[in-house]
Amino acid sequence: MPQKQEIADWFRTLQKEICTALEKEDGKGKFKEDSWDRPGGGGGHTRVLTGGDVIEKGGVNFSAVHGELPENIKQALDVKGSNFYATGISIVIHPYNPHVPIIHMNTRYFEIDDGTYWFGGGIDLTPHYVNSKQAAHFHKSIKSVCDRHDKTYYPRHKKTADEYFFIKHRNETRGVGGIFFDRMTNSPTTDKKAVFNYVKDVGKLFAPVYTRYMADSKDKPFTDKQKKWQLLRRGRYVEFNLVYDKGTKFGLHTSGRIESILMSLPKMASWEYDFNPEPGSEEEKTLQFLRKDVDWLNLG
Amino acid sequence: MPQKQEIADWFRTLQKEICTALEKEDGKGKFKEDSWDRPGGGGGHTRVLTGGDVIEKGGVNFSAVHGELPENIKQALDVKGSNFYATGISIVIHPYNPHVPIIHMNTRYFEIDDGTYWFGGGIDLTPHYVNSKQAAHFHKSIKSVCDRHDKTYYPRHKKTADEYFFIKHRNETRGVGGIFFDRMTNSPTTDKKAVFNYVKDVGKLFAPVYTRYMADSKDKPFTDKQKKWQLLRRGRYVEFNLVYDKGTKFGLHTSGRIESILMSLPKMASWEYDFNPEPGSEEEKTLQFLRKDVDWLNLG
Repeated sequence: MPQKQEIADWFRTLQKEICTALEKEDGKGKFKEDSWDRPGGGGGHTRVLTGGDVIEKGGVNFSAVHGELPENIKQALDVKGSNFYATGISIVIHPYNPHVPIIHMNTRYFEIDDGTYWFGGGIDLTPHYVNSKQAAHFHKSIKSVCDRHDKTYYPRHKKTADEYFFIKHRNETRGVGGIFFDRMTNSPTTDKKAVFNYVKDVGKLFAPVYTRYMADSKDKPFTDKQKKWQLLRRGRYVEFNLVYDKGTKFGLHTSGRIESILMSLPKMASWEYDFNPEPGSEEEKTLQFLRKDVDWLNLG
Repeated sequence: MPQKQEIADWFRTLQKEICTALEKEDGKGKFKEDSWDRPGGGGGHTRVLTGGDVIEKGGVNFSAVHGELPENIKQALDVKGSNFYATGISIVIHPYNPHVPIIHMNTRYFEIDDGTYWFGGGIDLTPHYVNSKQAAHFHKSIKSVCDRHDKTYYPRHKKTADEYFFIKHRNETRGVGGIFFDRMTNSPTTDKKAVFNYVKDVGKLFAPVYTRYMADSKDKPFTDKQKKWQLLRRGRYVEFNLVYDKGTKFGLHTSGRIESILMSLPKMASWEYDFNPEPGSEEEKTLQFLRKDVDWLNLG
């Protein structure tokens, strides 16, 4: 069965591979690495790329932290045990070109000294302009990974993503969704190795899928109006991350490393009072797509 | 004793007077008014000015709403009674010029059909560059209003503002503070009329104070570096409003009118990974001022 060190090493290697792939596709930008220690135990390596040719601001964060489990977290997680170990990677990429989507991916492993462990993760796509062919490709790619492990994963984890990546006060999904899962552990049908293999396959999906979307759209021309719309959509991304995202909230309220947590925020975002796109415009079409329970597989 | 309709009328008149004063000082921008109904009872008038000569984006919102008190709010407020009435104004102004500060002001009145009522309010200043003379003037102006009513108000309400306008995850205050107070009701030393008079005087302070700061700094030249710093400070403003501000959180989680609640967000904001101002720079000096318990009165 995979042990924590093996899992952390695998995540760290994945972080490096993803950064290499993103740099190659970007063609100009290079990630800079900041290594940091966590006062209570462990630390991380935060990698940030800014001012690339395709990527305006992107972060790929790795951490492996451990220590005493605070009482309130113990209660919130409903676990026994006094010490925890947590490792994972977390990625958000904000491109310059509004035709290239924002993407997020996260894989995580958590264990407690009472023997409890679980994996979690997710990947979701936030196009500034929804392209149903691209969304269908994204969901088909994810489904094909899921199906190799368990035919129930895609429908279940897609539904969880629809619920999770939802901006309630706007009544909008963050983007076209993807998958999200948490607290996956051994069960009558899965052992730890099988769950880890699923998480690995989700992680390995990131680079080929996103570099493809970068390549497809990075040279598409765009107008000032489209750039303005991108900044408004990024405003929504900020709203989601600061108001709803569990990882962000957990980090902000437990004195995590703030710069690593908030590297998900875009270089530039915008808010306009009561902005409504013109009827029939591409912007309005995008808004109409930002709904739960869209069957993306059959839209492309 | 003042009744709810009289209080609401006074707030509505104040809203108009403030908008007139801001338009006059701006010289170009005009507020546009949106009137809206609240499905459960009451409504409001939201006024927004964008693209002025001094004000990039500013909102002055009035509302007077009533209806049934949801069970969870009843518990949170620890009150009996089934129906509430709430009226108030709320203002946030984001100027173009980084030498003009951001300002916020709010006055509110709340009553329940069990006879309970209270007033609340606050005014605070968020300079992109702290100017200790301006901050001293701001606090002296507030203190002189407070002292006319009760000598304990300024020290108590200034302290409450320091605690409230605090970005915990950054360990920074939002700006140079001001005053903040809530649940002020009649007491052995104050009746309802006296509390309302205090709230009125706080409200009347807004226009003369802020138009002075507009006039003082609107023509000051600024560099690209200073504009960039302004956008980063606005990013912090967004963090405060979305993560901590009680009014914003309450509105987002109770299906308030989203556009009126989020009109406080700036037209444009920015985030940079691990940005640290140069030692000795004006930006670093500003950061050093963003602390609780600064005795602004004696700094100017």
